[in-house]
Amino acid sequence: MKWPITTIGLDADDTLWHNENLFEDHHRKYCELLSDYHDPKTVERVLYETEMNNLELFGYGVKGFTLSCIETAISLTDGAIKAEEIRRIIDHCRQMLLHPVELLEGVESVLQGLDQRFRLLLITKGDLRDQERKIAKSGIAHHFSHTEVVSDKTVEAYARVLQRNKIHSEQFLMVGNSLKSDILPVLDLGGHGVHIPYRITWEHENVQSPPHDHDNFYQLESIQQLPDLIDAIVLGNNP
Amino acid sequence: MKWPITTIGLDADDTLWHNENLFEDHHRKYCELLSDYHDPKTVERVLYETEMNNLELFGYGVKGFTLSCIETAISLTDGAIKAEEIRRIIDHCRQMLLHPVELLEGVESVLQGLDQRFRLLLITKGDLRDQERKIAKSGIAHHFSHTEVVSDKTVEAYARVLQRNKIHSEQFLMVGNSLKSDILPVLDLGGHGVHIPYRITWEHENVQSPPHDHDNFYQLESIQQLPDLIDAIVLGNNP
Repeated sequence: MKWPITTIGLDADDTLWHNENLFEDHHRKYCELLSDYHDPKTVERVLYETEMNNLELFGYGVKGFTLSCIETAISLTDGAIKAEEIRRIIDHCRQMLLHPVELLEGVESVLQGLDQRFRLLLITKGDLRDQERKIAKSGIAHHFSHTEVVSDKTVEAYARVLQRNKIHSEQFLMVGNSLKSDILPVLDLGGHGVHIPYRITWEHENVQSPPHDHDNFYQLESIQQLPDLIDAIVLGNNP
Repeated sequence: MKWPITTIGLDADDTLWHNENLFEDHHRKYCELLSDYHDPKTVERVLYETEMNNLELFGYGVKGFTLSCIETAISLTDGAIKAEEIRRIIDHCRQMLLHPVELLEGVESVLQGLDQRFRLLLITKGDLRDQERKIAKSGIAHHFSHTEVVSDKTVEAYARVLQRNKIHSEQFLMVGNSLKSDILPVLDLGGHGVHIPYRITWEHENVQSPPHDHDNFYQLESIQQLPDLIDAIVLGNNP
């Protein structure tokens, strides 16, 4: 017997609303700030190394990212960077946190249809307060039965979410832009995964290639195609 | 009819393990760092103002605190602080995050007795990753049925925790060092509150005076007195 899908998990950043574009903008300003010292490629490479070294300790989110930016700037300039320039990095951080939430096209109407037929969970990783603020600002929180903010999207983290919500993994379908965080761990548990790539993928979230031969794996170009795909899955006409 | 107590919520920082002492140590080093520019009293006052201005945006936790320290240092020195000194502030931050978790005296044996008779919830606020790391390092996670990390300990946050865990407020007793965060919101909901002050209270958590005339309010000097108090409450011999 197969369990019917009852619950749809949705990632938030770059799945429901734009996020990576803010980081892209920040990176541009950051490279400009350090352009007297190094070319953009070097700045990007060293910043990414610092971020990866700090990830275990600082976690995901704007505040940890900002601390990594400050550290990298000090080290790349051998301490020559001015306090005023560091203040500008913190100001960028504040602007990112204060930025309005911009939904991807079609999100609202897709949720409006799905929330009548499925339990919707918002499953996001990163800084608890940042994520709660974005959810509150998004205006779409009411479509979700509730929100799970996890510190990392591992197999164990998804297993805990499913257990806490009494969902069998076959009843669960996860939608997100990151193969590594949204799709692969859920497929591992026996759930369904719908990958919708965003225009930009953070290097850390890159995995080699989508598991196209996996029965429960699907890929779409836009969230607006999601209702049709789910209809096809539910009716057993695997697309 | 009165509901019997079934669930005990415990705060973590400065209730189960030392935390405020790390901040105290950081404040001392920070004032030293800025001692060429201002006296400690001015440094403390301006840092606290910056923290309060940033609280809504940055939330609780070491990373937001560190960003506030950097901002304050730049502003208090009119930009004269050196990048190397800012790096030292970030290093302090890293040391705080890496610091071993030191349990308060008696915590382990108190939990060992209580977890046989009650469902224990660890309820803590702040940075999700920092708190998860401390819980993992503490060695006492197995005494708890699970952990709730909330971004702020408001009446609404406690109401959500109780609802999610299907606990009537009268069945719930919360233990913690902060009147503002651990006790008053729980009393508001109709639960029980046991206040165990820590040696130091962060100014932001200070409230005027304990609600000594409230029927469900208790105050202890040490967590080692908790089992006896709970026995008295359960047996109806309100101490």
